[in-house]
Amino acid sequence: MMRDVCVIGIGQTPIGELWEYSLRDLAYQALQGAVKDAGIEQPDALFVANMLAPRLSSQAHLGALIANHVGWRGIEATTVEAACASGGTAFQAAVRAIASGMVDVAAVCGVEKMTDATSGQITAALATAADADYEGAHGASFVALNALIMQRYMHEYHLPHECFAPFSINAHANAVNNPNAMFRKEISFEAYKRSPVIADPINLFDSSPISDGAAAIILCPLEMAKDLSPRGPIKVLGSATATDTVDLAGRQNMIDLYAARLSAHKAYRQAGLEAEDIDVFEVHDAFSIMAALSLEAAGFAEAGHGTDLAQNGDITIQGRIPISTMGGLKGRGHPVGATGVYELVDLVTQLRGEAGANQVANAHIGMTQNIGGTGATVVTHILAKE
Amino acid sequence: MMRDVCVIGIGQTPIGELWEYSLRDLAYQALQGAVKDAGIEQPDALFVANMLAPRLSSQAHLGALIANHVGWRGIEATTVEAACASGGTAFQAAVRAIASGMVDVAAVCGVEKMTDATSGQITAALATAADADYEGAHGASFVALNALIMQRYMHEYHLPHECFAPFSINAHANAVNNPNAMFRKEISFEAYKRSPVIADPINLFDSSPISDGAAAIILCPLEMAKDLSPRGPIKVLGSATATDTVDLAGRQNMIDLYAARLSAHKAYRQAGLEAEDIDVFEVHDAFSIMAALSLEAAGFAEAGHGTDLAQNGDITIQGRIPISTMGGLKGRGHPVGATGVYELVDLVTQLRGEAGANQVANAHIGMTQNIGGTGATVVTHILAKE
Repeated sequence: MMRDVCVIGIGQTPIGELWEYSLRDLAYQALQGAVKDAGIEQPDALFVANMLAPRLSSQAHLGALIANHVGWRGIEATTVEAACASGGTAFQAAVRAIASGMVDVAAVCGVEKMTDATSGQITAALATAADADYEGAHGASFVALNALIMQRYMHEYHLPHECFAPFSINAHANAVNNPNAMFRKEISFEAYKRSPVIADPINLFDSSPISDGAAAIILCPLEMAKDLSPRGPIKVLGSATATDTVDLAGRQNMIDLYAARLSAHKAYRQAGLEAEDIDVFEVHDAFSIMAALSLEAAGFAEAGHGTDLAQNGDITIQGRIPISTMGGLKGRGHPVGATGVYELVDLVTQLRGEAGANQVANAHIGMTQNIGGTGATVVTHILAKE
Repeated sequence: MMRDVCVIGIGQTPIGELWEYSLRDLAYQALQGAVKDAGIEQPDALFVANMLAPRLSSQAHLGALIANHVGWRGIEATTVEAACASGGTAFQAAVRAIASGMVDVAAVCGVEKMTDATSGQITAALATAADADYEGAHGASFVALNALIMQRYMHEYHLPHECFAPFSINAHANAVNNPNAMFRKEISFEAYKRSPVIADPINLFDSSPISDGAAAIILCPLEMAKDLSPRGPIKVLGSATATDTVDLAGRQNMIDLYAARLSAHKAYRQAGLEAEDIDVFEVHDAFSIMAALSLEAAGFAEAGHGTDLAQNGDITIQGRIPISTMGGLKGRGHPVGATGVYELVDLVTQLRGEAGANQVANAHIGMTQNIGGTGATVVTHILAKE
């Protein structure tokens, strides 16, 4: 990186079925929160993360739309998309714009409005994250594809379904204390066991919800951050994207997230760190199987042992590697294109020491892993208190 | 810019109704052409420009999809979108990735597959470039919005419709010699006059066609380009995006492209140049009114005098400021998300001196202006022979 980049502001809307707000309203709220938090008037550039608006809101061209709705006339603005990993890639685009010396202050806004459509429209729209010709055309929904992965994983490692329960229980427990979370209630092991099957073996509590929401981040160069940031700058140490085939059939091993492994490796190398240096890890638990695979790919567990971390309590706030600390995709919610930005907002909250009842003790260095499709695009970020 | 960036390879498919090729096939062809032209095996990162695939091909997540289809397993890949300006913004993202020091060799691929859908689906998909709540919801198609601008322009400056004819005549004349152009035939003034009205006052020959196509570019840092580039590197001198309101009603003056003016101004400043230094200008002539407005905004004509340049022959290959030199959007074709990349490919062809019968004499410095929506996002690039 040609110059160091820091986060100086964060903002977010609550996540839920927000029928009273439009797409641009949600983006406005998150961005206003972020610039207020950063103590700035307006950025030089806006990077929007969104996946579904062209289909669910008949709206492309969100960069200019949102920049002008917020009142930032004339500023540079674009949208960055990589399905469910859109948030991470938009953040990366902002980091690079600043690192390149071509932009000073950048805003990232992840926004998604999913609940104004029918469930059929939503299912079809989410399937565009998979391969339309080789998966979608055969009727494979996005949850069905994740179910194939989970089924294979359980088969290969001789694991019962219930060993995934602690992922959902942990996520819900952490969501209770997050005022922006969609599901602020705990769930029990019995409730997990009773929960209806969505696509065998994935049940309701293995799945993140359909949600609306927006999250925003303000970034600037380190030298500027020292003057600007009232809450203390959080520095970007690593930023790496890697890909794999979009279709599951093309993968060398569908229960090893190759792109996640590669992306984490690149980010560790950039930061000069290893997995054991990470104090908190915001995973992409769109389905509980993805949390297990992400932990393995990022080097926190051997292949087939991701669920051990959950069983042993290692993933809780007090554990060895706390994940989904503000509720994760499962408890906080999963407004798809916005999720990668929420993960980073939650991480910044932890690194600032502002996570309240969910604060991870001594959280100095943290990581996010934002996953697009069934693992086709993975963006890893490592951030640290400056 | 923290380090200088160069174009070292270009590739493109012919533009047309390419029913025998899928979206990913088109991208493959353009990217294979570009890496061969650059003399490299594979890039480190891929930036895809696309607007319509989520709606017309039920496919988002094109970055990973295309990277893997081309055989570049694991590399970083994302999609950048700003409606019809997607190509320019993806190129800018690649420039910054390299300038930041985080990527060495980057590929840009603009791809669009429009002709496999019904005209109703295409019209609705193109309307997502406009404001869905304030324009699309009222039935305003994209051509209708451009017609409002043209009507206002003709009214304000007391101009007859026929003064726009030379834009179409020039574009078609130049397309004749471009083997990749969709319409390789000249049109006469009489044919322009006779052409049926699409949305008054826009007629068929004021409008670019619905097209399929893909174009690709390989970039790398200047120091690497000197060793790598068999065709001679083309250096990026300026790269600037600016925005205006997406909805026409929100504009301060709908016949002055504020974002184009601002974007050109930023690019000139970066390059240390002025309009008179530009030898060739690839404009975004999606509609002939847009060519006139872009010439004015970029400083080649006073407000209301863009059509004078066309009337006087200044826009031809031999003219003062040649535009649409390989046919432009009108003659070469307009595969929406790919168009900004085609503009840059055409410009590189000119700067390399490889434009054959359409070669602009002494073309050392050139500019592209890629316009999203009715002028809401404008990306200006200035390139020069190194």
